Amino acid sequence: MKLAAAITRLRELETTMHAYQHAMDLLYYDGVTTAPAAAFPGRGETLGTLSELSYRLFTSRKVGELLSFLEGEQANLDDQINREVRKLRESYDRQACIPEEEFSLFQELLNESEAVWRQAKADNQYDLFEPYLNRVVEYSVRFAKYYDDSLPAYHVLLQEYEKGTSMESLDRFFADLRTEIVPLVQQVLTSSVQIDDSFLYQTFPVAQQRELADYVLDVLGVDRSRCALGETEHPFTLHFNKDDVRITTHYEENNLVSSLYSVLHEAGHALYELSTAESLRGTCLAEGTSMGIHESQSRFWENIIGRSLPFIRLIYPKIQSLFPRQMAGVSAEQFYRAVNKSVPSLIRTESDELTYSLHIMVRYELEKRLVEGNLHTKDLPAAWNRMYQEYLGIDVPDDARGVLQDSHWSGGNLGYFPSYALGSAYSAQMLFYMEKDLAVWDCVSRGELLPIWSWLEERIYRFGSALEPGEVLENCCGGRLDSSYYVKYLKKKYGELYHLQE
Amino acid sequence: MKLAAAITRLRELETTMHAYQHAMDLLYYDGVTTAPAAAFPGRGETLGTLSELSYRLFTSRKVGELLSFLEGEQANLDDQINREVRKLRESYDRQACIPEEEFSLFQELLNESEAVWRQAKADNQYDLFEPYLNRVVEYSVRFAKYYDDSLPAYHVLLQEYEKGTSMESLDRFFADLRTEIVPLVQQVLTSSVQIDDSFLYQTFPVAQQRELADYVLDVLGVDRSRCALGETEHPFTLHFNKDDVRITTHYEENNLVSSLYSVLHEAGHALYELSTAESLRGTCLAEGTSMGIHESQSRFWENIIGRSLPFIRLIYPKIQSLFPRQMAGVSAEQFYRAVNKSVPSLIRTESDELTYSLHIMVRYELEKRLVEGNLHTKDLPAAWNRMYQEYLGIDVPDDARGVLQDSHWSGGNLGYFPSYALGSAYSAQMLFYMEKDLAVWDCVSRGELLPIWSWLEERIYRFGSALEPGEVLENCCGGRLDSSYYVKYLKKKYGELYHLQE
Repeated sequence: MKLAAAITRLRELETTMHAYQHAMDLLYYDGVTTAPAAAFPGRGETLGTLSELSYRLFTSRKVGELLSFLEGEQANLDDQINREVRKLRESYDRQACIPEEEFSLFQELLNESEAVWRQAKADNQYDLFEPYLNRVVEYSVRFAKYYDDSLPAYHVLLQEYEKGTSMESLDRFFADLRTEIVPLVQQVLTSSVQIDDSFLYQTFPVAQQRELADYVLDVLGVDRSRCALGETEHPFTLHFNKDDVRITTHYEENNLVSSLYSVLHEAGHALYELSTAESLRGTCLAEGTSMGIHESQSRFWENIIGRSLPFIRLIYPKIQSLFPRQMAGVSAEQFYRAVNKSVPSLIRTESDELTYSLHIMVRYELEKRLVEGNLHTKDLPAAWNRMYQEYLGIDVPDDARGVLQDSHWSGGNLGYFPSYALGSAYSAQMLFYMEKDLAVWDCVSRGELLPIWSWLEERIYRFGSALEPGEVLENCCGGRLDSSYYVKYLKKKYGELYHLQE
Repeated sequence: MKLAAAITRLRELETTMHAYQHAMDLLYYDGVTTAPAAAFPGRGETLGTLSELSYRLFTSRKVGELLSFLEGEQANLDDQINREVRKLRESYDRQACIPEEEFSLFQELLNESEAVWRQAKADNQYDLFEPYLNRVVEYSVRFAKYYDDSLPAYHVLLQEYEKGTSMESLDRFFADLRTEIVPLVQQVLTSSVQIDDSFLYQTFPVAQQRELADYVLDVLGVDRSRCALGETEHPFTLHFNKDDVRITTHYEENNLVSSLYSVLHEAGHALYELSTAESLRGTCLAEGTSMGIHESQSRFWENIIGRSLPFIRLIYPKIQSLFPRQMAGVSAEQFYRAVNKSVPSLIRTESDELTYSLHIMVRYELEKRLVEGNLHTKDLPAAWNRMYQEYLGIDVPDDARGVLQDSHWSGGNLGYFPSYALGSAYSAQMLFYMEKDLAVWDCVSRGELLPIWSWLEERIYRFGSALEPGEVLENCCGGRLDSSYYVKYLKKKYGELYHLQE
């Protein structure tokens, strides 16, 4: 094979894989935004066909040979192509080790499993879902073993979401959070400070909430000619390429902040995808590098910026002009305190910035034990409920609001949850380093967010997945994850809000 | 090859081709309903890749061999499979005769050509578009010759949109219309009857127009769990399968009837696709059989039912309740006359039921001459303007409102236009036969449209493309196209509206 021909074949492979992914992602997106209810089975069939075509193409012997050839030519290839080859090699090894029939069976299982989970959650019937979850765990462990029998299965699974993260480092990380945040939550609970947030739960017409969403996207500098905002039950962000990013939100008439902060959260994901370098376009590197780094960006814009006093002061005039009656007599400072009120609660996606990582800790410990074989799916609800009592001090009244609340496990995404907590911790660490270079809060106060975006663009966004998560941290915040930045950030913020003693 | 294995391979082929089509149609749909503006090039690349994959798969030697094998087994196969094979064979012969490179070049040309047409129309610059149209015509003729050198190229092109229609029958059909309808238009123009339709052009808030759209879809019995209504600049209908049909409309604040009748029109297309038989699901037969038969359904529901006095009487209370101020003092009969007002005009899509087919006649004669080499694209605007003067008695002030108004030619759809006029004529012929079996207008007056749908479902809809257009006409209205039904229908309706002498 000639080198030039191999590079052409690499480009064709990337183009075709991208086309399949674009189509599949769009089928999903359309399914949750626009499609009529009965469209579900037909969409599933098309998704199944496309996913099989794409799996077959990618795991073919020819692709293996092409990658091996290019690996042998490393010295003659530029850095970007070598990184493309490295990324494709990882996916290839991960997928090609699975026998095609088992791959198909697993896809079918996931389809069923997600449907059964939805039903089980609606009916509050964990028993319905348990056998499916059990098989999802079995398959996940088996596939991890196919990939590398010498490593713990959970370690292998983790690499899919946050490459380079070890179980040991996660154990340490969550141990730190347990030591520091569980007592902090306790202090907040027993503080004499009472935050009134009742004004956030009046009637807020959706038309004005939509206007507010458009406004905050403008404030953040999201390029709307490349980013559409849609509506779904569960907000998310998708990108087809850097010129076509989709974020969604959900408007609740009786809750002003639910959609406001979901928009800020998804805008963070969107800013990342909108800002990958032109030179990566069309390659497998043109997307965020990991779930954890992605989540650091959504949480950075949602929480660190979005729930800061300077940002609230910046956007509050707009909120007051949209909702003059509802916000009469409410100051920006009161609004700031209300959106930061902390109360241990049952549902992860509704929890506040302080207690959020405790929800993740529960999931991390449980899924690790499921995968390691130290916990049977039958015993999962009891273990879940015990941990909610231990870490958050609350009773779980039923499985629908307990172990059945999230879709991740039913979708086979074991190893995904830790990236949420990692993202929060990364974002605080990034803030610390950003403040060395930039008068962050002056920028926010003046409504000039461009320097903040530029700082992130230069160190994170433009690299897409050309850098691995560890390299990104190297680039922007001094190397490895260090949970102390996150702990300090939370202690300072909640110490002030709740007048806690050091 | 074993027969059972061949049938399995046929099913796999149909499933895969359907998945590609589903994805490509969804990319198009999303592009015109939801995608951000800058998404255009990325979508084009994915569409190009998928279309190439699907073309390569379908035109492969293996598919040719499979079809030949199944054709040899005709006696051992059931009727439906034989019809699937027949339909696939037609597409195969049509596509496989084109060299792959020329196919790709043509796709690229169409992409450019559509973009240039859009610009040319916006800037009123036919010269910009002319060289592209010239090449589109060249390619179309060349491809028609590849398919069958012994037939006139325009005849070959026609078969793609309305199989079984000959140029001779179309010449006769349009000659009849010219003889009968041109003088009728003249009579209407000089009639002393003046219809006031000014009340249709007040301010009608879009929210209420949306409610009206939902209401008429309910009246027609469109199953909304299988049919979504979206918004686009140019209304259209798409189906992914019988459980996922999409119609779109465009609301204009100053025009009540534009969206109302576009919804009725698209609902006609939708009813057809929603009603193909379960047994056809997943096969290449699960869709309407031709453009002409499809258009007969959209025009049946839009014009024959939708613009009838009984239907207006049925829905008028709803219109009055949605727009009490605007419709104050307007009776159902006045509304009926207003929506049927006939005035020769420049734009096909805005024209009334009476003059519509004259717009088509112009396009038919011109595209036939272009393809036959009797007219050069450079001379097209002058020829267009002359014919608008001759048939409709109006001057075309500029090409944007003349020859550049439609997208069809820029999209390579030469041979498509006649199906619009055929559809109108079919629909009048169908009404004549339906009235023999059914008290059509009693049903409409009572708001019971189910028997009308059932009549059509039984004779047309359920067959999908298992029957060819001629067989459908056989099934429901006595055989071949006969323009006299259409002429009689128009003479009666407009004679009454404008008090014309027989």
